[in-house]
Amino acid sequence: MTTEVRNAVGKLAKARALMHQHGLDFIVAGPSADLFYLTGARSHTSERMTLFILPQEGPAYIVLPTFEAALLPPLADEIVIRTWGEQDNPARLAAQLIASGASALPGGFSCTIGVADQLWSVFLLRLQAELPRAAFTSASTVLTPMRQIKQADEIEKLRVSGQVADEVFTEIVGRPFIGCSEAEIGREIVERLRAKGLEVPGHAIVASGPNSASPHHHTGDRVIEVGDAIVLDFGGTVGGYYSDITRTVFAGGAPLPGSEEMHVYGLVAAAQETAVQAARPGISCEALDAVARDYLTEAGYGQYFTHRLGHGIGLDGHEPPYIVAGNSTLLQEGIAFSIEPGLYLPGKFGVRIEDTVVLGPEGAERLNNAPREITVVS
Amino acid sequence: MTTEVRNAVGKLAKARALMHQHGLDFIVAGPSADLFYLTGARSHTSERMTLFILPQEGPAYIVLPTFEAALLPPLADEIVIRTWGEQDNPARLAAQLIASGASALPGGFSCTIGVADQLWSVFLLRLQAELPRAAFTSASTVLTPMRQIKQADEIEKLRVSGQVADEVFTEIVGRPFIGCSEAEIGREIVERLRAKGLEVPGHAIVASGPNSASPHHHTGDRVIEVGDAIVLDFGGTVGGYYSDITRTVFAGGAPLPGSEEMHVYGLVAAAQETAVQAARPGISCEALDAVARDYLTEAGYGQYFTHRLGHGIGLDGHEPPYIVAGNSTLLQEGIAFSIEPGLYLPGKFGVRIEDTVVLGPEGAERLNNAPREITVVS
Repeated sequence: MTTEVRNAVGKLAKARALMHQHGLDFIVAGPSADLFYLTGARSHTSERMTLFILPQEGPAYIVLPTFEAALLPPLADEIVIRTWGEQDNPARLAAQLIASGASALPGGFSCTIGVADQLWSVFLLRLQAELPRAAFTSASTVLTPMRQIKQADEIEKLRVSGQVADEVFTEIVGRPFIGCSEAEIGREIVERLRAKGLEVPGHAIVASGPNSASPHHHTGDRVIEVGDAIVLDFGGTVGGYYSDITRTVFAGGAPLPGSEEMHVYGLVAAAQETAVQAARPGISCEALDAVARDYLTEAGYGQYFTHRLGHGIGLDGHEPPYIVAGNSTLLQEGIAFSIEPGLYLPGKFGVRIEDTVVLGPEGAERLNNAPREITVVS
Repeated sequence: MTTEVRNAVGKLAKARALMHQHGLDFIVAGPSADLFYLTGARSHTSERMTLFILPQEGPAYIVLPTFEAALLPPLADEIVIRTWGEQDNPARLAAQLIASGASALPGGFSCTIGVADQLWSVFLLRLQAELPRAAFTSASTVLTPMRQIKQADEIEKLRVSGQVADEVFTEIVGRPFIGCSEAEIGREIVERLRAKGLEVPGHAIVASGPNSASPHHHTGDRVIEVGDAIVLDFGGTVGGYYSDITRTVFAGGAPLPGSEEMHVYGLVAAAQETAVQAARPGISCEALDAVARDYLTEAGYGQYFTHRLGHGIGLDGHEPPYIVAGNSTLLQEGIAFSIEPGLYLPGKFGVRIEDTVVLGPEGAERLNNAPREITVVS
């Protein structure tokens, strides 16, 4: 039995226990981090249904196209592979497997099914049509508490992923920025991440000058000028685990003492440091968000901190817990998340500083350690 | 009014007419090709809800996070932007907008809502909880007939996208293959596609030797050897529109006359040509699939053609119509799709040849024209 299979066996047992506790008879998941976490199988989302079916008791199933079965890794013994051909109705097959423990026909089978978040609606609607008496609800009551607590092997992958992102930051600020487009810088960041072995499913955010005031700016053709603030936000995966770092650099020289840029940079850096220091097991997500938000609000800039403080990170780049007002979830040892305050002055500039951290018994360990002081690019 | 906005206005009117015909009171779509097609807005799928709500009559809405509103392109006047802050409940906001035409509270509002295929289940489940009396069904009755008929501007993008893929095939077979890993070849294909301006969201399939017998092989570390058949399957997007080409090449020399490789290659090439010739408005998807399948079956190889003949292509790499047994949809002028028969001899080798085509009034125009005769790489 491989380490991966042994891990999967333990996770399935844990999931079944939580399903019992939360009243879920089944969990269904499509291709996603949930599928990979529970089974070790990676599969791409497509119009051809791939569905993992985990009952509270008895065999689990992976339903997938016949010609993709050969791509599956070794699986836990309790997972049965059921393939479907191009003319079959996979939703009906899945419904029959779900109802197989019952004497009734699938249409009359009553149960509660937890659905993984990222399953495409087309598949949920088909399952709902096949199982009209089933109740469908979120599987997050089971999957979130499991996935958010990282084990040692997961933390190690997050750590390596973060180190690579740090290295790329250090490298990229050595290249010329002024006169180059955001897209050119973004491409080089992604190339460097990939050259160091990271998978990079998305893009790097490179937001310069007034664009830096837009937190989710689409990296574009704007040419970087002397005096620009430039938000660099990027990462990738190691063994499926994401890194996510943001630094804000300045083109052509540091902001002048007394300038608004210098003031705002100092506020964001201090808010980030304050929140990292405050992060520990037992503090709620909303309280940690408030630590940074209150600091910036007292400085008169709260209105410009327009997003949450951070997000959980792991097999998804953004995953629970979200460090946001209204989320009373208590942080625990083993939770990894970003701490990324930002201030965005519309039409002028923005500053964001982000590290991924993981909570130990005493507090947060930073998984990003690239310089947080003012960095100048030329 | 920009061309894009004028296009969107026309599409929205058409969609509303089809909604009336098919009994949908609303369509909801998340970030997807559906959203882009109907509105011109590109948005990434994430845990933060972005939802387009199109009623049969009255204003449409895009519900999205406040700080992403600035990224929206110019929209048709009938689309109202509704933003939500980090502490808001966007599913409730969406439900209120859906029920706003009714005097009843959202919970009591009864209507039929068509859901776009790729909306994440987490959002559908939340909408279902907010609107317990609404009926949710697929939006494909409206979106498929619209999206599958390509207009002149869409065909032009598909054509350019296909030409770039052709050029990259011609270039890549000039480089050394023997002694190189599949992954190395795959990376270069993607780099060349990107260098010519294509967006490449996925990977290239490079399946060599016995791996070529797996239609959806994950490009890996296998090193290419003399005598290998190598399936190369790749594409990317121009203005959002996909290309998708497959060619099978041989390492070190052409298969010998009389060899099984030569025989199988000839069968696949002939089946592909036969299907391209048979494709015309009025033939059903299943009949076209049968043209190629019957040919290969009569040659004694039908069992090795393990997948459908092809798939529609446009803003999604795979979209309706699917050219598959059991699909009685009639092909029409303006439909673009792949024709990609393949034979996969387990443990030995596989051959697939794929072109994207678009139907004119008389028949299929190939959008891929890279050589289909035996190509040898060194």
